[in-house]
Amino acid sequence: MGIIVQKFGGTSVADAEKIRRAAQKAIDTQQQGNQVVVVASARGKQTDQLVADAMELNPNPPKREMDQLLSTGEQQTVSLLAMTIDAMGHKAISMTGGQIKMITDSVHTKARIKSIDGDLIKSHLDDGNIVIVAGFQGVDENKNITTLGRGGSDTSAVALAAAIGGDCEIYTDVDGIYTTDPRIFPQAVKLEQISYDEMLEMASLGAGVMHGRSIEFGKKYNVTIHVRSSGENKTGTLITHEVPKMEGILVSGATIEKNLAKITMLGLDNHPGNAAKVFAHMAQAKVSVNDIIQTEISKEKANLSFTVNKSDLDEAKKAAEAIKADVNCESVFCRDDIAEISVIGVGMRTHCGVAEMMFSALAKKKVNIDSITTSEIRISCIVDQNQAESALKTVCLAFELDKPVEERSYTE
Amino acid sequence: MGIIVQKFGGTSVADAEKIRRAAQKAIDTQQQGNQVVVVASARGKQTDQLVADAMELNPNPPKREMDQLLSTGEQQTVSLLAMTIDAMGHKAISMTGGQIKMITDSVHTKARIKSIDGDLIKSHLDDGNIVIVAGFQGVDENKNITTLGRGGSDTSAVALAAAIGGDCEIYTDVDGIYTTDPRIFPQAVKLEQISYDEMLEMASLGAGVMHGRSIEFGKKYNVTIHVRSSGENKTGTLITHEVPKMEGILVSGATIEKNLAKITMLGLDNHPGNAAKVFAHMAQAKVSVNDIIQTEISKEKANLSFTVNKSDLDEAKKAAEAIKADVNCESVFCRDDIAEISVIGVGMRTHCGVAEMMFSALAKKKVNIDSITTSEIRISCIVDQNQAESALKTVCLAFELDKPVEERSYTE
Repeated sequence: MGIIVQKFGGTSVADAEKIRRAAQKAIDTQQQGNQVVVVASARGKQTDQLVADAMELNPNPPKREMDQLLSTGEQQTVSLLAMTIDAMGHKAISMTGGQIKMITDSVHTKARIKSIDGDLIKSHLDDGNIVIVAGFQGVDENKNITTLGRGGSDTSAVALAAAIGGDCEIYTDVDGIYTTDPRIFPQAVKLEQISYDEMLEMASLGAGVMHGRSIEFGKKYNVTIHVRSSGENKTGTLITHEVPKMEGILVSGATIEKNLAKITMLGLDNHPGNAAKVFAHMAQAKVSVNDIIQTEISKEKANLSFTVNKSDLDEAKKAAEAIKADVNCESVFCRDDIAEISVIGVGMRTHCGVAEMMFSALAKKKVNIDSITTSEIRISCIVDQNQAESALKTVCLAFELDKPVEERSYTE
Repeated sequence: MGIIVQKFGGTSVADAEKIRRAAQKAIDTQQQGNQVVVVASARGKQTDQLVADAMELNPNPPKREMDQLLSTGEQQTVSLLAMTIDAMGHKAISMTGGQIKMITDSVHTKARIKSIDGDLIKSHLDDGNIVIVAGFQGVDENKNITTLGRGGSDTSAVALAAAIGGDCEIYTDVDGIYTTDPRIFPQAVKLEQISYDEMLEMASLGAGVMHGRSIEFGKKYNVTIHVRSSGENKTGTLITHEVPKMEGILVSGATIEKNLAKITMLGLDNHPGNAAKVFAHMAQAKVSVNDIIQTEISKEKANLSFTVNKSDLDEAKKAAEAIKADVNCESVFCRDDIAEISVIGVGMRTHCGVAEMMFSALAKKKVNIDSITTSEIRISCIVDQNQAESALKTVCLAFELDKPVEERSYTE
């Protein structure tokens, strides 16, 4: 018995049949003695259609108006869900972001949540309602409608769970988080649980199940997030705070990121402030930079590399060429035939040898490593794109990501 | 120079081309030195589609949820219109009913407006914006979204014009109000102006250009309503307070209402309170009664007839049969093969002989009159449905409704 926030994404409410299934899930959860809040996204391709309608009239629409437009998709879903639950003989009430006072800042199309009126939701719950809340949307202090950006409904759900003290279930078309992408490594196994930090690294490295901001919210406000299938009724993956058991696992997951390009600036003056100059310039050019690697090549000179999304490559290259003379860089070169393979695990904090295991596995398969970056719980290697998938498989086998945790040989 | 509220119905914003045309009209009006508020309906068949989506999930959806759902159609139109005006290089801001604080009562699907925050709209106008307001919708005092029912966007527009002291233009697919339905009487002519009272009678008798409530609002708050074509740029029909000139016109328009049925209760006891009993019973059965005719047939007995919408006939008949014994009525009979022909004109207040002109025109054409009702500015005859259209034409010719007012022979 408790409060459960269930989030249904666009594919989980795409048609009448799926809306009924989501409604039934909420009813079942209530019947088991819980209070239930549902957070829903726009149906299937509705958002795409609205974007197309807008683009036909204005290829560069004002963001406030875009939010006003797109927020209707979620509003439609929640009212339809409430009607469906009513038709099934149970009490439901739909709420927009404005109605639950999901107050955000005024940064349209990627607003951040400032506060939520949990009391209003609780009073509707106490009246016996299943409360259906439009995801992805809020209002600023002047009642302008805002949206939370990509993955925003996940963030709505986790933030709501935080505001009313509930657990959060994310229903999706996969049945949980896997050790790696099963489309590339079919032996991948479903994780029972994963820490917020690991999931954040996975999310930022292209494991697209959940958006990073919702996980940050979960971590900050201590909300357990259960990622599970909207089609089947079985346990998925719990995203939680780190528990001691997790440290016994060397590597929780591995990812592949293909949508990368790399810029290298050779032999630039290794003066304080030169790197800052380069990245200030990139920021001005609206290029989002991922990993940065700098190495000294002499007392005066260094090589500076960084990765960007492929779509930003042209802009990044232009910006690098423009700043080149300023930092006395000898030459700039780019690669877009690369991919990044990463392993992630909080176990790395306490175990040595993970990097060595990864590199020797790649060496055995004759995968050339272009560059390496690490964080406290992650090791990433940039490799040739045409070797990337086999590199991922090799790494997965080396860390036994095809086996449940308890069957792995190196688990403590 | 003034404030003009322009209302565009669903057909006037049905596609990108029409949205651009509406945007251009608003811009042109602003360029002529006016402050412009646009009120828009949902695009084309959007509302029908949403209703169909709802019906698939719940054939009897909760009205609050229906309002939550349907209001998205107008919200989409206003944001698209604002984007379009922006693309054309002018300032615009879209507003939902909630955002302009269009406060209504809580009677979902047919709410009534209680107040509007005109100051907010004025401040956006003073900033140089064309303000685009979602028609048909408001919010109650608990922020539940409400809708105003059929023709609601007209009411929104007139109410807004009243709140901010502007004139109101209703853009539609006809170019004004005609003396009668041109599909039946092609020689019908466009009226230059018509009084609120006449328009109210026309509206209630099935001339579907505008909904009665918006006209009541115009009358109450002294808003001049200009009904005109969204396709052409010419003057339409002004709905205004009565001016002396109007009294010189015997008949302003004629209408035909085919969607009628008539219930007659024969020989009921003519006791005080019996008619009240009958109509209380009808109200309980949710039957909406139009005209009522009662005639004494003896010291103790009377015949009571009333018309209802055809769709209410079954319910009305059942209700009449149920109350029959209670009022000692001898028998009940119904007709659904009838239509009502009416002539309307404030001139009737000061001119005699209109009724006689109408009856003798019908007699000449051998049209049998089933029954007659009148109001201060209207005479209605119920006739056989198969004679109804020729009856309308006859009446139109008798009152010269094929001629502009100044060419008519009996005009003072």
